[in-house]
Amino acid sequence: MSDAPRIDQAELQQRLQQARARHDEFCQAGLALDLTRGKPASAQLDLSSQLDGILQGSYKAADGTDVRNYGGLKGLPEARELGSWLLDMPAERVLAGGNSSLTLMYLFVETALLFGLGNLPAWRESTRQPKVLCPVPGYDRHFTICEQLGIEMLTVPMLETGPDMDAVEAMVAADPDIRAIWCVPKYSNPTGCVYDQATVERLAALPGRTRPGFFVLWDNAYAVHDLTANPPQLSNLFQHALAAGTEDGVALFASTSKITFAGGGVAFMGASEAVLSGFEQRLGALMIGPDKINQLRHARLFPDREALMAHMGRHADLIGPRFAAVERALQAIEGEQLASWTRPQGGYFVSVDTRPGLAREVVRLAAEAGVKLTPAGATFPYGRDPDNCNIRLAPTFPSLEEVERAMEVFINCIRLASYDALLQQETRA
Amino acid sequence: MSDAPRIDQAELQQRLQQARARHDEFCQAGLALDLTRGKPASAQLDLSSQLDGILQGSYKAADGTDVRNYGGLKGLPEARELGSWLLDMPAERVLAGGNSSLTLMYLFVETALLFGLGNLPAWRESTRQPKVLCPVPGYDRHFTICEQLGIEMLTVPMLETGPDMDAVEAMVAADPDIRAIWCVPKYSNPTGCVYDQATVERLAALPGRTRPGFFVLWDNAYAVHDLTANPPQLSNLFQHALAAGTEDGVALFASTSKITFAGGGVAFMGASEAVLSGFEQRLGALMIGPDKINQLRHARLFPDREALMAHMGRHADLIGPRFAAVERALQAIEGEQLASWTRPQGGYFVSVDTRPGLAREVVRLAAEAGVKLTPAGATFPYGRDPDNCNIRLAPTFPSLEEVERAMEVFINCIRLASYDALLQQETRA
Repeated sequence: MSDAPRIDQAELQQRLQQARARHDEFCQAGLALDLTRGKPASAQLDLSSQLDGILQGSYKAADGTDVRNYGGLKGLPEARELGSWLLDMPAERVLAGGNSSLTLMYLFVETALLFGLGNLPAWRESTRQPKVLCPVPGYDRHFTICEQLGIEMLTVPMLETGPDMDAVEAMVAADPDIRAIWCVPKYSNPTGCVYDQATVERLAALPGRTRPGFFVLWDNAYAVHDLTANPPQLSNLFQHALAAGTEDGVALFASTSKITFAGGGVAFMGASEAVLSGFEQRLGALMIGPDKINQLRHARLFPDREALMAHMGRHADLIGPRFAAVERALQAIEGEQLASWTRPQGGYFVSVDTRPGLAREVVRLAAEAGVKLTPAGATFPYGRDPDNCNIRLAPTFPSLEEVERAMEVFINCIRLASYDALLQQETRA
Repeated sequence: MSDAPRIDQAELQQRLQQARARHDEFCQAGLALDLTRGKPASAQLDLSSQLDGILQGSYKAADGTDVRNYGGLKGLPEARELGSWLLDMPAERVLAGGNSSLTLMYLFVETALLFGLGNLPAWRESTRQPKVLCPVPGYDRHFTICEQLGIEMLTVPMLETGPDMDAVEAMVAADPDIRAIWCVPKYSNPTGCVYDQATVERLAALPGRTRPGFFVLWDNAYAVHDLTANPPQLSNLFQHALAAGTEDGVALFASTSKITFAGGGVAFMGASEAVLSGFEQRLGALMIGPDKINQLRHARLFPDREALMAHMGRHADLIGPRFAAVERALQAIEGEQLASWTRPQGGYFVSVDTRPGLAREVVRLAAEAGVKLTPAGATFPYGRDPDNCNIRLAPTFPSLEEVERAMEVFINCIRLASYDALLQQETRA
């Protein structure tokens, strides 16, 4: 993409005029389309419609617990089992919580910062300015947690294999104030990459290279969100950490938000015994226990791993075509080298890089034409994309027709912004 | 109670022996009874059994929101309406959250401490050692929040009318580091008292007497938990605060934990617009939104205030007899002046004061005989009851027969401990 093919100025001028005319048409069409948020579509939510009422009046867990009453900070055993399938670790090391893994992540990071976990020192005790590594582009809500808690964010490039581990290791070696790294290891938000085995192993070893209290924050939000028949396998972080003796330096998160109901799922956290009980100590002051009723509903919906995977197959049937539509639309500009993009095999996002300096303008143009896109910069800490080129597309929520229409508009916005910029370059040259 | 009637030593000796013999019998009976936690009984939970399945496949809120999906930090309008009945304030000032008002309280206090709310300064910015007033006896989980967050607790006596307001006002005037007061204004935990109007008015005026950022923390957990036909009316704190211009100094909390399902209810918080939006700012980094599905279930179960009150009447039918059994049992020692106790018209607890210095011994004896009681001291900050006399009884969870049996044991433990102590006094005299 870096070198756009030479086109003579007249040709460029003509293409610009076409794109502008097309854009004006879109603007007049009164569109209201939205590719911003990673929300499941109604049809996906319908896949779990039986959840309300699934208990059929029986509120007893397998161990006899009346799930309606107080108690059970770690969650219901059968829910922890479900979590263990997502986190790929033993159910005894898994806590099942409320409806939000974001809440667990926030509270976990805050606990590491202010209180320390078990015998591990609190970040604020051992450093004036704790810092966290953020592979970019990344997930804005991870950044918000750090920003609100006053944790400095340092960026590190995201490769197709995961974070650039040479850079990660060098930064960690050079700066003892770095206390954690955010990871979305499978179908990363937004690039969709899956960390390869070498990356997972090097991440698992990382806590051993730093001070006690360092954490690999493993947000495995898309653990079972495959779109292909032979999905990539994520290497097992917890196993690698056990092998490296760094199990007190990893914290794993997942939820059913994009499996059942986005607003009413169950969140999970997995960690070593020491870290988990340290976290429970904090949690015990915050709540008496999670909503075990909803946990039981989920356990009933997914009696085994096979039921879960079959369910995810039905999700794939619904959202696969939307991802295909995004890819098809992008292929229209493949030869022109106006953008590069990712081709995820799962997850919720496609990441597009425009030519440098054009992301904000493309987002602005799309908004003008009635297509809402995630704000440019949102995939970087502090909203600062140094190249102003990254745009995150989230195609799950709109209908297939809407995705197709929105992508037409989007592609034209890329053309419009790119031709305009190229012409200005020509003029300056 | 302070002066036990003079009994001659031989008579006392005899009573002690009887009590000891009785105690030995109880010990051998292999009882396993529990009067510790304020948990609803199964029969109470059964009153809401229709909650799971109540949506009958319709997940749409009144405003068309698909409650299954993400979003809506303030909660569903119809759930906020339900909260407004509990908090006695406009629904627009009410936030509907997850399953735990304790979580809302923790996060609120933490936000006041670390971040500040809206334009109000954070406690930690404006004082080296923030302090909170705790009327005693009080609720241990309030104390735990303060302890975990490093907030110093100062005690103030609880009267039958609520906190001793002369003491409260004097302490607040003398110590600018006092930043809040905990209140359970109706059927206070554990005394069961209802704050009278003068107390509520003086509490509402309190933020005006202190620095900005002071909060009356109003945990109205038992707002509709009446056991009598003509229940006492709690004066309206928020109204008084509006009249006094102190509405930015009150934060109200409630939940349906003891209305529907203890582990799967809906929690609420009410505050001024400024305070609520300051809190939302914090909350927005912690979660995308609460479980709106469960909120909709609750709104369906209670379409109006009358439905809610009728439901609470059914609770009263179930737990009223248990409270009566506690009172009946205590009356057995009325003439002996071995203890004083409260006679709540609602709520979940009865507070018993033994003769000074005997609470721990009574709790120990009861445990010996198979009756679990809330640890002595738990109703005081740092677990320190200076007179070692207060014991909290929670009669809702066990069956009526179990309450009766447990109270027999308990009364005998009071006798045993008291006679023993009186005899030792005599011997020393």
